[in-house]
Amino acid sequence: MSKGTVVLAYSGGLDTSCILVWLKEQGYNVIAYLANIGQDEDFEAARKKAESLGAKKVFIEDLRSQFVEDFIWPAVQANAVYEDRYPLGTAVARPCIAHRQVEIARREGAQFVSHGATGKGNDQIRFELTCYALYPEVKVSLLMDANLMHISECVILCVLQSHAPADLYLMTKNPEDSPNEPDVLEIEFKNGVPVRVTNVKESTSKDTPLDIFSYLNEIGGKHGVGRIDIVENRFIGMKSRGIYETPGGTVLLKAHLDIETFTMDKEVRRIKQGLGIRFSELVYNGFWDSPECDFVRHCIAKSQENVEGKVQLSVFKGQVYILGRESSKSLYNEELVSMDVQGDYDPCDASGFIRINAVRLREHHRLQGFSGTKK
Amino acid sequence: MSKGTVVLAYSGGLDTSCILVWLKEQGYNVIAYLANIGQDEDFEAARKKAESLGAKKVFIEDLRSQFVEDFIWPAVQANAVYEDRYPLGTAVARPCIAHRQVEIARREGAQFVSHGATGKGNDQIRFELTCYALYPEVKVSLLMDANLMHISECVILCVLQSHAPADLYLMTKNPEDSPNEPDVLEIEFKNGVPVRVTNVKESTSKDTPLDIFSYLNEIGGKHGVGRIDIVENRFIGMKSRGIYETPGGTVLLKAHLDIETFTMDKEVRRIKQGLGIRFSELVYNGFWDSPECDFVRHCIAKSQENVEGKVQLSVFKGQVYILGRESSKSLYNEELVSMDVQGDYDPCDASGFIRINAVRLREHHRLQGFSGTKK
Amino acid sequence: MSKGTVVLAYSGGLDTSCILVWLKEQGYNVIAYLANIGQDEDFEAARKKAESLGAKKVFIEDLRSQFVEDFIWPAVQANAVYEDRYPLGTAVARPCIAHRQVEIARREGAQFVSHGATGKGNDQIRFELTCYALYPEVKVSLLMDANLMHISECVILCVLQSHAPADLYLMTKNPEDSPNEPDVLEIEFKNGVPVRVTNVKESTSKDTPLDIFSYLNEIGGKHGVGRIDIVENRFIGMKSRGIYETPGGTVLLKAHLDIETFTMDKEVRRIKQGLGIRFSELVYNGFWDSPECDFVRHCIAKSQENVEGKVQLSVFKGQVYILGRESSKSLYNEELVSMDVQGDYDPCDASGFIRINAVRLREHHRLQGFSGTKK
Amino acid sequence: MSKGTVVLAYSGGLDTSCILVWLKEQGYNVIAYLANIGQDEDFEAARKKAESLGAKKVFIEDLRSQFVEDFIWPAVQANAVYEDRYPLGTAVARPCIAHRQVEIARREGAQFVSHGATGKGNDQIRFELTCYALYPEVKVSLLMDANLMHISECVILCVLQSHAPADLYLMTKNPEDSPNEPDVLEIEFKNGVPVRVTNVKESTSKDTPLDIFSYLNEIGGKHGVGRIDIVENRFIGMKSRGIYETPGGTVLLKAHLDIETFTMDKEVRRIKQGLGIRFSELVYNGFWDSPECDFVRHCIAKSQENVEGKVQLSVFKGQVYILGRESSKSLYNEELVSMDVQGDYDPCDASGFIRINAVRLREHHRLQGFSGTKK
Repeated sequence: MSKGTVVLAYSGGLDTSCILVWLKEQGYNVIAYLANIGQDEDFEAARKKAESLGAKKVFIEDLRSQFVEDFIWPAVQANAVYEDRYPLGTAVARPCIAHRQVEIARREGAQFVSHGATGKGNDQIRFELTCYALYPEVKVSLLMDANLMHISECVILCVLQSHAPADLYLMTKNPEDSPNEPDVLEIEFKNGVPVRVTNVKESTSKDTPLDIFSYLNEIGGKHGVGRIDIVENRFIGMKSRGIYETPGGTVLLKAHLDIETFTMDKEVRRIKQGLGIRFSELVYNGFWDSPECDFVRHCIAKSQENVEGKVQLSVFKGQVYILGRESSKSLYNEELVSMDVQGDYDPCDASGFIRINAVRLREHHRLQGFSGTKK
Repeated sequence: MSKGTVVLAYSGGLDTSCILVWLKEQGYNVIAYLANIGQDEDFEAARKKAESLGAKKVFIEDLRSQFVEDFIWPAVQANAVYEDRYPLGTAVARPCIAHRQVEIARREGAQFVSHGATGKGNDQIRFELTCYALYPEVKVSLLMDANLMHISECVILCVLQSHAPADLYLMTKNPEDSPNEPDVLEIEFKNGVPVRVTNVKESTSKDTPLDIFSYLNEIGGKHGVGRIDIVENRFIGMKSRGIYETPGGTVLLKAHLDIETFTMDKEVRRIKQGLGIRFSELVYNGFWDSPECDFVRHCIAKSQENVEGKVQLSVFKGQVYILGRESSKSLYNEELVSMDVQGDYDPCDASGFIRINAVRLREHHRLQGFSGTKK
Repeated sequence: MSKGTVVLAYSGGLDTSCILVWLKEQGYNVIAYLANIGQDEDFEAARKKAESLGAKKVFIEDLRSQFVEDFIWPAVQANAVYEDRYPLGTAVARPCIAHRQVEIARREGAQFVSHGATGKGNDQIRFELTCYALYPEVKVSLLMDANLMHISECVILCVLQSHAPADLYLMTKNPEDSPNEPDVLEIEFKNGVPVRVTNVKESTSKDTPLDIFSYLNEIGGKHGVGRIDIVENRFIGMKSRGIYETPGGTVLLKAHLDIETFTMDKEVRRIKQGLGIRFSELVYNGFWDSPECDFVRHCIAKSQENVEGKVQLSVFKGQVYILGRESSKSLYNEELVSMDVQGDYDPCDASGFIRINAVRLREHHRLQGFSGTKK
Repeated sequence: MSKGTVVLAYSGGLDTSCILVWLKEQGYNVIAYLANIGQDEDFEAARKKAESLGAKKVFIEDLRSQFVEDFIWPAVQANAVYEDRYPLGTAVARPCIAHRQVEIARREGAQFVSHGATGKGNDQIRFELTCYALYPEVKVSLLMDANLMHISECVILCVLQSHAPADLYLMTKNPEDSPNEPDVLEIEFKNGVPVRVTNVKESTSKDTPLDIFSYLNEIGGKHGVGRIDIVENRFIGMKSRGIYETPGGTVLLKAHLDIETFTMDKEVRRIKQGLGIRFSELVYNGFWDSPECDFVRHCIAKSQENVEGKVQLSVFKGQVYILGRESSKSLYNEELVSMDVQGDYDPCDASGFIRINAVRLREHHRLQGFSGTKK
């Protein structure tokens, strides 16, 4: 007698293989689900492994385009950065994977979902919150004791003064070994998302979301862009060290910040900046599928309506340098800003503007004088 | 008959020399005041020039230590960055210069102050707001027509798609020409400000504020760190292009962000992040000497009480890489974060935590189901 | 030879009559424009007066419905309150009046607009900013010396410890003289705005925006609701005393707060609360027609999609008491909240939730113990 | 053999009496602890009851002064209101009670604390978070099944359209039955907290914190001030209905808002308003003893340094009316605000101020014209 059906987010690795076997032994039918979001993996080998371990069905799903369009693009629009430094790579992948897993669970009539994320991290939270939000009746199957199967990766990095070993990085070249010539790219945006990237020297370009993002990962990685070694605050309140590589995301963040400031009203930008910080916290904490994250995404998307144009940048030795930008929606007014053209702008107005702004400051000084206090 | 005494912020250059002469012709006694905040300048030549143009007195004031301690250090504590990109170099210099100018004006009985900042920029505002705030009765002497004397720097840069010419940069090497070997620094912080910088390979160190900051400018500059080319929103609401170099400030920003996240409580950090953004806007807009900026500085300084420890970093080809950190005030708990040690942390608690966080999400889903709406 | 045509916001009173005459004497063609936004005024008498003073044309425009729907309703959705107390009555009227004035100016080919608001208040700013925003080429005609024509209203109120005289209030009864029986109303909302108000005892109801708002003004006024005597901060940085009556607005604020908290997700509400504060500041300062206010209005409107249902309240002696509420979009779950029904909710989850929230607090305590510091 | 010692927050009522007996039966030594924070209770009868049920020791602690000074006063400074309506009465009491309980537990060597708060409410969270924060090694003793002992109070109120029955209110008169004559009070503040309250007609006054707060509760209650019937969002994400009475707190909130706006700089006020909202959320959610709440309290206290002076108000039929105010720290400048005195203020400055503020709005309009889009 089966206890029911579990859809397991299967990676092909040791951890989730153990979970698969254990779930079967506990009396569950196991459906193995493996999402392709662009990782380097032998998917057919993973399928065979899952089958040989007793999975009733195996679903290998290519989510790459959906991942870029529905999850990465909104993060680009938001300039999403957690705690001023982390561009949210993994945090954005988790709801993408869980969306399809819930779809499969509903379609296959599975009452359970399972995953290999351990009990102290953010990924468990991101995974489970998404499942509960989209499939409220679902049960998350009990984890085994994480210690049994987890090969600790914490030997060196948990000591915070230790430097990260060079072979930890998979997507990015060490900047010391990267090319001595920059690549120059032109990225074109519409509605705050990239619609084309051109390698200026090579005159080649990409124009589907997946191709654009893959190409930026390739060029960014080649030049060692997007490595960070940070201490971050997990949702559950403990600090942990994170070593991340986000080559394409880092290039896009710089380019988007540039085109956005260029085409967006100053005060809209200030309000949107606050919403972007909120978005980053929500996504980091696993609330992609919450009403507030829906709301924030809607507002941010609205703010992007005029964020269009082209940014030229060079990528070199771990850095991205903005070279120039242009846009038909530019709010930059060459004539207005010029010292040589008076135009509409009367210098007396600036004096009045300053004196009115000073009314309050002078009153404050007056009071301080009366009360004899010093700042 | 003199119309009164003016203290003129004199640079030694063409603009302020013209103003000096013009003020004299208008019947003012002119006191020339030249602040040394670390710029590359022949101060004695400037003194002679001012005297020869008819300045009644010339004050050349070395404000370098005060500039670093009283103006740059609070910006470091705040992680001050305007519009996500500009680390506020000039914005912070302006009130420092005006403070001393007001002191001189009061001491010398001058009713007027003057300056060479033009009528469309932020510097006029920063300068004048500071003067009004500290010396409410002061009069800012009328500017001549700025067009007469301003040699336009806007020939190339005002066209936003043009790349900035290489010789524009004065403090920083072109990263393409910078050394092929990184420098490795250790920066020690106390109360959120650096108290010592050590070059790890050379075993040399600096420990006064001015020496520390100068050294970071030197090392940062040598490796091409801190160049940005941005479009920014001026206080008066127009967009302009800014090309900035902030080598030392950029190194400090990265190092301070690291030690702060490591030693500051997560939620204090979130609130302080908001205050830092507010601080940056206030300083950019010229409100250093406002009650709200006083208040924000006080709150930020309070948040820095435990921000101490050492950050190791390498500086290379325009980038700063954090290598490791240590602190006796660390809130990082190696044991707690480790997968191998259970300690205090019960995985069941995480499940409960997640399910309680999901209560609201499930209710939301329930309502959406009833009403048949789709997100 | 005419200097051009001015559209003057004419009130029929002494101030704007003086301006009309003066403008004519200066050589302008004057078009008098009088907006009916519900004030108590003899509009035909005003028309005759304007014509007799030499106005070339007189436009009397009934903007009452538009005022309620396009200006008051968004403020209701926002729970608009400036500085925690002022519900923004006048501030919202100003852009409504200026919108039509600009329309008339464009249609009649007038290059100038004028108004009677004096030089130290918010209304001048609100009026002029709106004109510049909608008609950038417009010129605001020079004001005469405000002192000549302004009968000071500042005799008593400017002394802040003086109590406001009873006859200052025009719309609201003194609560001491108001009825000894409450009125009980039921207000029905859809998309966060009222669509019907019913007097429960009298079984009468209103269902157009103008009727609803007028009726709430009437009932609120009858019971002395919405009087405030405050010190506020004007945009230009000076404090001033304001005595306001907002009977209908106060009833709506209370009712909307209630239905909103009832039907809106908790975290959406938090974000929207911040946007509402921003909206209030923008409107108070005269930025109704700015890109950021457009953006904020759009976001707030989005948040109101499920804000619907009925609120019962009583109005009595200056107060509004919420009695009950119901909604088909309620997020309140009687079963979930009940102590008697366990339902989905496992008390162990709460313990886990609390312990995870305490992880950070315990770590903080641990550090404080080490460092020997006391809060 | 005892399992250890528990300090139980004992109320004298049925719930905690049951818990006391049950804990004894489970093999714990029970210390009963009863906090007097001003509730109406026969403390000696409760002591006898606890002893007769087998408590090893009974502590009855008079925390009234400490409650007012250390917990209510900071909430007054913050203008603490949760979700725009709830002035946080109970939320503030909980940490006060838990502080002493932890003290007793440490002193008596008790490893356990217990309480009668049920598993779905905020009070359990507030209580337990405070205990963990102050005494990280403490264990919260397991609760019995709440259903066994909880007499549901949810018969009527859980149906949200039902009106609250009149006899639910204990501290406040029904406004319909309250006096037909107002009381007029003068409250004097220093550092943002009341230092004296005077009944103007009776010429009596109170000047210790406890006396002041008790008197305001008495007068507010006599006139039916501070009743609210709301739906609120609990920390755990469910909505619940709350019926609250906060007579003294409501009077103080109105008076403090008034003196604060009068004596605090406009922009400091804006920042402090945001901190006050954050404070309210933290306290509501049980984080009084968190590093971030410490930080926020510190910042708010700093903002109150000049908040001093006197507010006159009348209390009548459920409402509080501000009548006037005075302060030696007033930032209100009668002369500056007057229309009759020109003083320092040049009307041309206002025009310049407005035109500079309009630069951005006109540019925005220009772009919209080009692109042909309509708002």
